[in-house]
This record gives sequence, C-alpha cells and structure tokens, in this order.
Amino acid sequence: MCELLAMSANVPTDICFSFSGLMQRGGNTGPHRDGWGITFYEGKGCRSFKDPLPSAHSPIARLVTEYPIKSEAVICHIRQANSGKVCLENTHPFTRQMWGRNWTYAHNGQLANFQQELPIKMHIPIGTTDSEHAFCWLLDQLHYKFAEQEPDEVTLFSFVAKLSERIRQLGVFNLIISNGECVFSFCSNNLHWITRRAPFGLANLIDAEIKVDFKKETTDKDIVTVVATRPLTDDEVWQKMQPGQWQLFRFGESIASNLK
Amino acid sequence: MCELLAMSANVPTDICFSFSGLMQRGGNTGPHRDGWGITFYEGKGCRSFKDPLPSAHSPIARLVTEYPIKSEAVICHIRQANSGKVCLENTHPFTRQMWGRNWTYAHNGQLANFQQELPIKMHIPIGTTDSEHAFCWLLDQLHYKFAEQEPDEVTLFSFVAKLSERIRQLGVFNLIISNGECVFSFCSNNLHWITRRAPFGLANLIDAEIKVDFKKETTDKDIVTVVATRPLTDDEVWQKMQPGQWQLFRFGESIASNLK
Repeated sequence: MCELLAMSANVPTDICFSFSGLMQRGGNTGPHRDGWGITFYEGKGCRSFKDPLPSAHSPIARLVTEYPIKSEAVICHIRQANSGKVCLENTHPFTRQMWGRNWTYAHNGQLANFQQELPIKMHIPIGTTDSEHAFCWLLDQLHYKFAEQEPDEVTLFSFVAKLSERIRQLGVFNLIISNGECVFSFCSNNLHWITRRAPFGLANLIDAEIKVDFKKETTDKDIVTVVATRPLTDDEVWQKMQPGQWQLFRFGESIASNLK
Repeated sequence: MCELLAMSANVPTDICFSFSGLMQRGGNTGPHRDGWGITFYEGKGCRSFKDPLPSAHSPIARLVTEYPIKSEAVICHIRQANSGKVCLENTHPFTRQMWGRNWTYAHNGQLANFQQELPIKMHIPIGTTDSEHAFCWLLDQLHYKFAEQEPDEVTLFSFVAKLSERIRQLGVFNLIISNGECVFSFCSNNLHWITRRAPFGLANLIDAEIKVDFKKETTDKDIVTVVATRPLTDDEVWQKMQPGQWQLFRFGESIASNLK
C-alpha cells in the first residue's frame, strides 16, 4: 500500500511540517520505500519533485523539507509498490492537462482486472501501474462527459466521485486529485482530514520529533486543510472518512461532500 | 531571449558539468533571470525541476548540480521573459503526454500573431507564453496527422521539422523537443551541438571555473551529444546549426538531419 498527503489552503502555505512527518514513513517509521513524489501548485502552474528512492533517504526530499514552497494546493504520495515495478514512470503523483489546467492525481490501494474493466482510448498510460491506468480512464470519462466545456466545480467533482465509486468496485481506491483550485478526496478504506483555522494551536508530529506552533506561522485569516492516509499529528482531532465518502476542498474550505 | 540545453546519450549520463555552466547564465554570467527548468528522462518516466527564480541563486538548481541524476535524454531552459509574465506556468520545459510517452519541449525566440496563426483545439495552454501555445499547436497537428498511430521516429520528426518551419515564419523559433528516446533540435538563428565519444579529452566551462576530464567520467562506449544555444566550453569544437537546419539525435547519435 501507499500513503497519501494533500493540502488545500486559502493563502499560499508551505507543507514542510506535514511532509517532514510523512517522509519518515518512506523507509524509516513506515515501510513505503518504493519512491515518493510531491506536486505543488502555484497559481495555474505546478512543479513536482519525485524520486524512485525512499523518501527518508532522498536528498530531494530533504530539500523539500528545507525549502518552504508556498502553495494553495499540494498532492503527495509515498509508495509501497504492489502493481508495477519501482521506476520513475510508476512514481506518483501523475500530472496531465485538461481544460487548460494541470490535473494531479495520487492513489492508494490496489485494483483487480483494471485493464478489462477500465478501457481507455485517449489518455494512454506511460507506466504499468493500476493507479495511472485508472487516472487515464478517469480523464477519458471526463472528456466523454463534458468534451471541451469545463463544468462548474461541484458538477465536475460530483462526477469524479461517481467514477471513483465505479473504480472502487475493482478493489481499494483511496484517491486524491486536484486541478489546482480544488482538492478532491475519495475514501475507499483509509483517509483522514483536518482543517486548521484560528485560533491556531500547537501540533506534534507522530513520525519525527518536531512540534509546531501554528500561531507563529499563520495569520487569523488562514484556513488550511490537510488530508492524509493516517493522521500525522497525535494532539489534534482528525476526521476519519468512511468508505465511499468524498470531500471537495477549495482554498482550504470543505465545499461539498456526500456525508450524511 | 532564453537559452536552451539538451543532452542525448547512449548510457545514462549526468549533466552536472553542462548545467553548472548554464545555470550561471541565469542571473550571473548571463541575463536570463526569469526562471529555469530541467527535465530528466529515466526510461519512459521523467522528472522536472523548475523555479521561477534565477538559476544562479536557486537552491533547487544547486541541488541539480550536486545530485548526479543519470539520464539518456535531458531538456533544459533558462528564461529571459519576452512573452508572458514570470510565473511557474510560464516556465519551460513543458511536458505533455502523447502515445504513452512524455513529450518535453523548450523554445528560445519570439513569435508574432501566434494566436491567430496557430489555432488550437485539443491541447489547451495553461500559461500565456507564445512558446507553450506553439507546443500545444504542434501536438494538435501531430494528432491530426497520425491520430492514435505513433509513426516511426524519422517520419515523426520529419513532420515536426515541417511544423517547426511553419512556426518559424512567425518569428524566431529555436526548438528542443524530446519524447524520451529521441532529442530533436530545430535552429531558427542560434543553436550549437557537439558529440563526445572516445577518445575523450578535457573540457573547460566558459561560465564557471570548472574543468572536466571526460576520460575519467566515461567508458570507451559512451556517446553523448549536447545541444546548446551557445557553446558551453571554450576548448572543444561545437557545430553551429544554420537557420532552418534540424537534427535528430537518438541515444547520443545523430540519426537524421536536413543538412546538405
């Protein structure tokens, strides 16, 4: 399996604190040794850092913890390979373009019969993972449904939720996907989230001896949501998502969900 | 204007030496202060490092010079903005997917009336540069010409050459583009290349006090071609390309050209 991490914020915010915890799970406090990647959006542009090496020992991962890139949306993934060998083309997140936006996708789980059940035509995978295949299928379906006309975000991501539900029938499909403005998460069996806003407090990482006082790092107007496979801090209350639940975040706020 | 750098090699080779020279032109020995980017192919996968900051002062650029990523194809660009503001989405190289491959593109020059003259439909730009627009148009044209069927490489890049000639009518269009296996270069007014092979010798960078003895870094079978806007070393013979000339490299060797 793998671990996912995402952030959605209303002001450009760095993810150094959360990433410092997560990267330890890539070969140190966790077994996810088969590569890692992180994508930062800055406006409509994005940049990724990726390494097929374990994050706990990667000089690029160290740079990411030390160089505070400020972003309103971040997608991150550390991999424990189950489908597709360990190589760069199988390393998440995957980024492709649609409607003049960068779409970034990371998946945790495993899918059976994906080649038969998710036929693709337009968006052809580069690597051999079930994850990238499902991403390509999802983009194909978005194209069939909406063609050249990008719909409003709730219509769009409600449809992504429907597609995710279909993919989930093939196995385990915890998903994080972003178009730079929205961050969408779909839970198959394991996903948590937390929204931090004023009054900010202290937080203590589970995987590294690092504490942060968010009061010192933020202003009263900041709203920052973090989504992760497992909680990253042990002194805050994380929301556990239910199987089949999805949440749509936009600039830090939850704007839609199927939660009853 | 901007500066381009590319590498094509028959064995995974690092570009630390050449990049150490080029990065100095981004705000130190040259005026190209408006961002930089480099894309490394490793098999079918690729990873990019990008920064809208000057390369001469970028911690990410320093990492790239110190961390020897071994690659068979590299595309690099340092930017002096003339079309489109300085931001991440306008920072080259641009990467998009076609036929299950990553295509990476960087342009030096300036194009007039590109929005009217190069209509696009399928591949929609994310930023506002003439460069990305021309890349999107080029991919649209490849799709119209070959649809789902990727042709052999000489047919494919001969057609890219034809498209480049058409784009060049709009201004200055020095191009480097790669699908991971081939590196194609098209000269509008300024592009040089060199192929290094046994017997290897010494080389001295123009832009930094760095010398290398390639004999110590290579084996007798290595073949490495470097393409650059201006020569990077002052004690080797670089081939100057002529306006309208194109060269196709594959794993270090020149395999096709329109040179008479």
